Amino acid sequence: MTPDEFRAHGHRLIDWLADYRAGVAARPVISQTEPGQVKAALPAEPPAEPEPFDAVLADLDRVVMPGVTHWQHPRFFGYFPSNAALASVLGDLVSTGLGVIGLNWQASPALTELEEVVCGWMRQALGMSPAWSGVIQDTASTGSLLALLCARERTTNFSLARGGLQAEPKPLTVYVSAQSHSSVEKAALLAGFGRENVRAVPHDDAFALRPDALAAMVAADAAAGKRPCAVVATTGTTASTALDPIAGIAEVAARHQLWLHVDAAMAGSAMILPECRWMWDGIERADTLLLNPHKWLGAVFDCSLFYTRDPDHLIRVMSTNPSYLRTAADGRVTNYRDWGVPLGRRFRALKLWFLLRSEGLSGLQARLRRDLDNARWLADQVRVTPHWRVAAPVPLQTVCVVHEPPGVTGEALDAHTRAWAERVNRSGRAYLTPATLGGRWVVRVSVGAEQTTRADVEALWALVRSAAAGDAPGLA
Amino acid sequence: MTPDEFRAHGHRLIDWLADYRAGVAARPVISQTEPGQVKAALPAEPPAEPEPFDAVLADLDRVVMPGVTHWQHPRFFGYFPSNAALASVLGDLVSTGLGVIGLNWQASPALTELEEVVCGWMRQALGMSPAWSGVIQDTASTGSLLALLCARERTTNFSLARGGLQAEPKPLTVYVSAQSHSSVEKAALLAGFGRENVRAVPHDDAFALRPDALAAMVAADAAAGKRPCAVVATTGTTASTALDPIAGIAEVAARHQLWLHVDAAMAGSAMILPECRWMWDGIERADTLLLNPHKWLGAVFDCSLFYTRDPDHLIRVMSTNPSYLRTAADGRVTNYRDWGVPLGRRFRALKLWFLLRSEGLSGLQARLRRDLDNARWLADQVRVTPHWRVAAPVPLQTVCVVHEPPGVTGEALDAHTRAWAERVNRSGRAYLTPATLGGRWVVRVSVGAEQTTRADVEALWALVRSAAAGDAPGLA
Repeated sequence: MTPDEFRAHGHRLIDWLADYRAGVAARPVISQTEPGQVKAALPAEPPAEPEPFDAVLADLDRVVMPGVTHWQHPRFFGYFPSNAALASVLGDLVSTGLGVIGLNWQASPALTELEEVVCGWMRQALGMSPAWSGVIQDTASTGSLLALLCARERTTNFSLARGGLQAEPKPLTVYVSAQSHSSVEKAALLAGFGRENVRAVPHDDAFALRPDALAAMVAADAAAGKRPCAVVATTGTTASTALDPIAGIAEVAARHQLWLHVDAAMAGSAMILPECRWMWDGIERADTLLLNPHKWLGAVFDCSLFYTRDPDHLIRVMSTNPSYLRTAADGRVTNYRDWGVPLGRRFRALKLWFLLRSEGLSGLQARLRRDLDNARWLADQVRVTPHWRVAAPVPLQTVCVVHEPPGVTGEALDAHTRAWAERVNRSGRAYLTPATLGGRWVVRVSVGAEQTTRADVEALWALVRSAAAGDAPGLA
Repeated sequence: MTPDEFRAHGHRLIDWLADYRAGVAARPVISQTEPGQVKAALPAEPPAEPEPFDAVLADLDRVVMPGVTHWQHPRFFGYFPSNAALASVLGDLVSTGLGVIGLNWQASPALTELEEVVCGWMRQALGMSPAWSGVIQDTASTGSLLALLCARERTTNFSLARGGLQAEPKPLTVYVSAQSHSSVEKAALLAGFGRENVRAVPHDDAFALRPDALAAMVAADAAAGKRPCAVVATTGTTASTALDPIAGIAEVAARHQLWLHVDAAMAGSAMILPECRWMWDGIERADTLLLNPHKWLGAVFDCSLFYTRDPDHLIRVMSTNPSYLRTAADGRVTNYRDWGVPLGRRFRALKLWFLLRSEGLSGLQARLRRDLDNARWLADQVRVTPHWRVAAPVPLQTVCVVHEPPGVTGEALDAHTRAWAERVNRSGRAYLTPATLGGRWVVRVSVGAEQTTRADVEALWALVRSAAAGDAPGLA
């Protein structure tokens, strides 16, 4: 494709995307496709000869779009808000079009230095001290893995440079909460700790990790000849946005030399609001911290900020220095390849830079406050409606709801809960995702898609009540 | 930013990118910026208020572009070709604009199923049997890590589900070559094996790993009470595109139950040419295989294909199944979250789908054959020119060259080599990256940027001779 062809096709695609975003509210939120349907609509063999761009665009509409669940839909209340603000989309387009790879500083100085700048901007926007250094990773899963690798190597004084984890005399233990994201346990297993060495610390009634229980488990493990290594605290758990008490956990971590990683993947974005910062009180005592601007904040996926107070340690764990990557600038510059797993890196800073400049902190703050208000409004409606219950505190934008018809309890209630959520989802008129909380199924209403207004939340509440009453709402 | 603003700004950016690509040849290849220059040109504090899009675009030209090294430049001969073909750029723009996240199948069925389709297309295009299942990862570094984690868990019969690597009685060993990419050793260290357990197997004069030496080392380790676990072979090493003999290595691997991972990050793309497939003879006996369509093939970064013959094993190593990710479709569909580290996934298949359809296999094959011809031409020129030497076989598109002025040897020769490469690079008229090979510095000429023609290679050869003669060519 020549630059002139790109110009012509690119203009069409920009219009296509503008139309898509302008009209997304009219589509069913989740794809109505059956397993295998997209695959079956495409040739089994690769194209031998070039095809006209029109044919590709036609298949985009015919084959791909019916298989898309619309995360940017104003009535997407599933999982978490994953906003791809249009300014950020344009920033990422620049990255893609330039096609540069950040193997090292020289491979594109601006790629590295703009990343340093936006990580610094975000640090300030979140109210964090200058003691933190940041880097953009892909996801929180990767961030948890990096944190636990840093922990493993600090506790073992760099076993990787010697005989590895297998040569360590004592089993290393990691502490999480039953409400921690599944990727935390996955990271611990991939880092080699073993499931038997991953402890689920009990939580309180608000689903927050109990520092006293943590202290007791750590002491018991140490007494039993284990080597306590790391604790992962969550600011805003996945199921219910519970807030683990960072300050109390940091106390225990300091006493036992545990690495403290804070997973603030979703809720971290809220820390651009000064009135929310009490939620991670004690954060300055953590070792590493992760938040995803690709969630609520609006940077298009993937854009995950990993902050560390000890970049030299991270670099020592991650660094390689083969001849073919050395340049004259080394030693005077940041080489982000040594701050994570992948060597090659996209110019990810652009999408955050475009977002922050186009919206300004004030614009982002206003949108997040709108969502907090909408979530509080919904929680209030649920609380005052007979047979409805809010199943967890609502510090942020996620409301966990249960409908409890008289006499329906236990597994029958779980079945009822999942059935009405499925009715909502199948209708295409809204999307929400159930989860278990304290052993029972609840339905999470995660407010905060960029286009979601109060009217959308009101419509959802009407839809939810009707679905719980047994109505199967028609397709959007 | 509203959809209408996006439309207006997006059209401008498409034009900006079309102009950039059309005119990239006129720019200096590598950025002439000094460390800290980009950072210093930007505000230290985040923007409080929204800024007009014009201001962002102006800074893109004023601040960012001088800090960009142009990987899409026709005279970029550094590292490896990392082609961001414009059709692929448009495919990625669709992914970015849709803003969907592949947490599971239901979160966008098309994201998963199109990935299955393009992985199947590429498998066929590469001449591989239907025994392979593919998934898109970010980079080869991650692919090496996945492979070694699969190896670790097969050898230990899933130690991660028990006491972890630390509970294993025998040290596990991993075999690489001194020519393996640095990310392979990094992956081994992150997976917990420890540097003392990573063996560098000797290579032959063509820089290819010696299966006889591998067999001897494995036997010696086993006799010494170690547990040989994995071997990584490379098709097309980074420094010189050396070809490790897969078939011979597979023999040893089979005899000792080693996991065999083949890193074909750069050279794998060449396997769309039937005449190149002898280079990885024996590939069907590998356990896992990686190649990067984001290199020579033209898919914009990041797009790394990881193939396994045992997806069930990979899933068992990687899977998590928390309540909030379960859907009614599970069990009937592929959930790619269990095929790698990150939970969230971009709609990466689109960029490969757009590329394959717009160029067709015939178009991609023609471009790769052009590059192979150009590399052979250059190697021929070097060979017949007095005091010049080709330092390694040239099976593909990388030519390692040395200029040996009479009487200059050893460290003085190394200094000369690096000095003339630096003169070329500083000129901005071409870019190439030196590396060590067999203990001496050579200059790699990696041919294969999408726009590179024979005229560009001729110009490079003239420039290289002049730089080696001591001339400091002026800026482009």
